Amino acid sequence: MTQEPLPARLPVTDRTRHRRLREQGSLERAELEAILDAAFVCHLGVLVDGRPVVVPTVYGRDERWLYLHGSVASRSLAGDTPVCVTVTHVDGLVLARSVFEHGVNYRSAMIHGTARKVTDPEEKLTGLRLLTEHSAPGQWSYARRPSRKELAATTLLALSLQEASVKIRTGAPDDGDGPDAALGLWAGVLPLTTVWGTPEPDPALPAGTAVPEHIARRAGTRHG
Amino acid sequence: MTQEPLPARLPVTDRTRHRRLREQGSLERAELEAILDAAFVCHLGVLVDGRPVVVPTVYGRDERWLYLHGSVASRSLAGDTPVCVTVTHVDGLVLARSVFEHGVNYRSAMIHGTARKVTDPEEKLTGLRLLTEHSAPGQWSYARRPSRKELAATTLLALSLQEASVKIRTGAPDDGDGPDAALGLWAGVLPLTTVWGTPEPDPALPAGTAVPEHIARRAGTRHG
Repeated sequence: MTQEPLPARLPVTDRTRHRRLREQGSLERAELEAILDAAFVCHLGVLVDGRPVVVPTVYGRDERWLYLHGSVASRSLAGDTPVCVTVTHVDGLVLARSVFEHGVNYRSAMIHGTARKVTDPEEKLTGLRLLTEHSAPGQWSYARRPSRKELAATTLLALSLQEASVKIRTGAPDDGDGPDAALGLWAGVLPLTTVWGTPEPDPALPAGTAVPEHIARRAGTRHG
Repeated sequence: MTQEPLPARLPVTDRTRHRRLREQGSLERAELEAILDAAFVCHLGVLVDGRPVVVPTVYGRDERWLYLHGSVASRSLAGDTPVCVTVTHVDGLVLARSVFEHGVNYRSAMIHGTARKVTDPEEKLTGLRLLTEHSAPGQWSYARRPSRKELAATTLLALSLQEASVKIRTGAPDDGDGPDAALGLWAGVLPLTTVWGTPEPDPALPAGTAVPEHIARRAGTRHG
């Protein structure tokens, strides 16, 4: 837990070297952080009885650590254990002239490392705050914060952001300058956008309970 | 590859038994299929050098098999190898009175099994058709189909849909009838919706190339 900043350039390791599609890889830490900050659900890969299991879970982060809600995975995380966390934004379908060149525009970050269970109460509270504010900015101040008992009942995992890689695909199909361009077919991208909708009040709420500004202002804005 | 239909009720195994949040689990095959059909990118977990690696990839399916574009993962799939495929829809943020009860409305399917590389040319073509039509209905008829050479250059994986589980959360927060309801805080769900945008033509296209109807009609429709 040294406080030196992580380098802006992600390190190349056997697991983060881009073997395929090199042009799509990035090792800029700023790109990693942008991808992480634009989502709040990741896919966490762990080993259970020697087999991979991939569970969706929520996360938050600071400069150095990814904090993950670890309840689902916790039974397989008795000690320090290798994990892989992947966050993916699907930005659109790439519709080429040939089926072979079809693809997806996406932004994906993959973090490799060893997850540790957070046991220090102060770090746990910090991690939970980061996780809450990551998905629901403003809620840490607005909602009731965890009691000591709730804190104890929460499993939080920390994963270093040291070893990570990023892959991004953007833009048009790749067969616009090949022989298939002569086929006269339409080609391009069908974009996908995720947006926040109108807040849906809990039916149990007393009538007239106002939606707080930090929630209301997200309605209609783009997510991801 | 027997042709008996898979049972409508997914089998309970050590890996699909819902240990936690039992109320959210489902073992209805129809729910599994609905979740798979509403997305086209999954997260594939494989073992690489004994560690989990989670890669996003596209897929399609029939009644019995999930077909996955396997190029990224293929270097680690020399033989039959255990995999886990997870497909997740994030439907909204659950904003409770207490931080502890915050959560996510989601639909998630998890498939466990052993991936095999598809080598039979006929099955490979079928699998690629399913995969293409899954993400881009109509493109198998419209675009140029794979040549023999392209088919050979494509790595396709098949995973049985036999062993799978589904988890779904919907609805309001869980603390509407507890002591925190007296706090007078707003609580509810902030929904997330993904929509297809307007087709973006490849800049390399000749002016006036019409967007085919099977692509144009998706614009503005909901995805997921």
